[in-house]
Amino acid sequence: VLSPQPILYSYFRSSCSWRVRIALALKNIDYEIVAINLIKDGGQQLAIIEYLEETRPTPRLLPQDPKKRAQVRMISDLLASGIQPLQNLSVLNQVGKENQLTWAQRVIAPGFNALEQILQSTAGKYCMGDEVSMADLCLVPQVANAERYKVDLSPYPTISRINKSLLALEAFQVSHPSRQPDTPPELRA
Amino acid sequence: VLSPQPILYSYFRSSCSWRVRIALALKNIDYEIVAINLIKDGGQQLAIIEYLEETRPTPRLLPQDPKKRAQVRMISDLLASGIQPLQNLSVLNQVGKENQLTWAQRVIAPGFNALEQILQSTAGKYCMGDEVSMADLCLVPQVANAERYKVDLSPYPTISRINKSLLALEAFQVSHPSRQPDTPPELRA
Repeated sequence: VLSPQPILYSYFRSSCSWRVRIALALKNIDYEIVAINLIKDGGQQLAIIEYLEETRPTPRLLPQDPKKRAQVRMISDLLASGIQPLQNLSVLNQVGKENQLTWAQRVIAPGFNALEQILQSTAGKYCMGDEVSMADLCLVPQVANAERYKVDLSPYPTISRINKSLLALEAFQVSHPSRQPDTPPELRA
Repeated sequence: VLSPQPILYSYFRSSCSWRVRIALALKNIDYEIVAINLIKDGGQQLAIIEYLEETRPTPRLLPQDPKKRAQVRMISDLLASGIQPLQNLSVLNQVGKENQLTWAQRVIAPGFNALEQILQSTAGKYCMGDEVSMADLCLVPQVANAERYKVDLSPYPTISRINKSLLALEAFQVSHPSRQPDTPPELRA
């Protein structure tokens, strides 16, 4: 169903692009990147991930059990709808330069509080048990944003532990913002 | 898979609750409402809708064709992640009373501009062809928010037309904020 060489319109720093890059890497799909500097953020890229899951089911990014699938989607939505849009570039531009850090911290912290609690009942090695899922694709880019906005991560030991395990995986490394064709030299890994 | 009488923790005015109420009505599922006045907004409730779709597939809220499914999810995410979180209650509280209307208009308009264009290639009677889909569940509550914040809807004839058709359907009426157990008397239909 996918055309032989899909094109991803990507921005190295966008957490939405990053999520999709991880999915493509996990599913071992070759693709072309067309870098776009003007980012139109939002959680929209979850639609791409669900599409990939349906057309390239292996390895799966959603568990088979409907309740577990719902939990993975809940965590994904908490990150991609409940947190990320509130601290994306267009919102931060609107709140003004001097308020950006405070604003970002104030929207990320309550989301991470909720997430830390949810993970206590769902997590194994990763967000949902020991299998990498869509929730993990959403977690890593959001933790990177939190670090960028200097959110204190010490109240979130589970989030931090899972993030570290995920960053050790190849798919999360090749898709990292520091290794993209449009990454500026000073931000390269 | 669903327990015999599911409970929906709902707030009459929350667009996230409303989306789920429409899905439950369309799928003809009886449920109990537990009203919560403190709302924790965000797009999270899409996880419930996907769960309902998987456990109660009829009538379907996602088309069968993977590309069309992706388009329905894209529209849903544009509404539920790209627009709604930017104008939810907690964000509006942070921007301050005197700025709320301007803020809400400024975040809704660009989203509706994008949506109006997308709908020109996907819409029939509803957002995706002539079948009610998850995208429609997201559209109606967001148009209601736009009206509440006095967004000028004249640049969006397709959005307005679809919204009107949907509001004529029973499932969208019984789930309407004006007809919920926790609707205050002065806001009742």
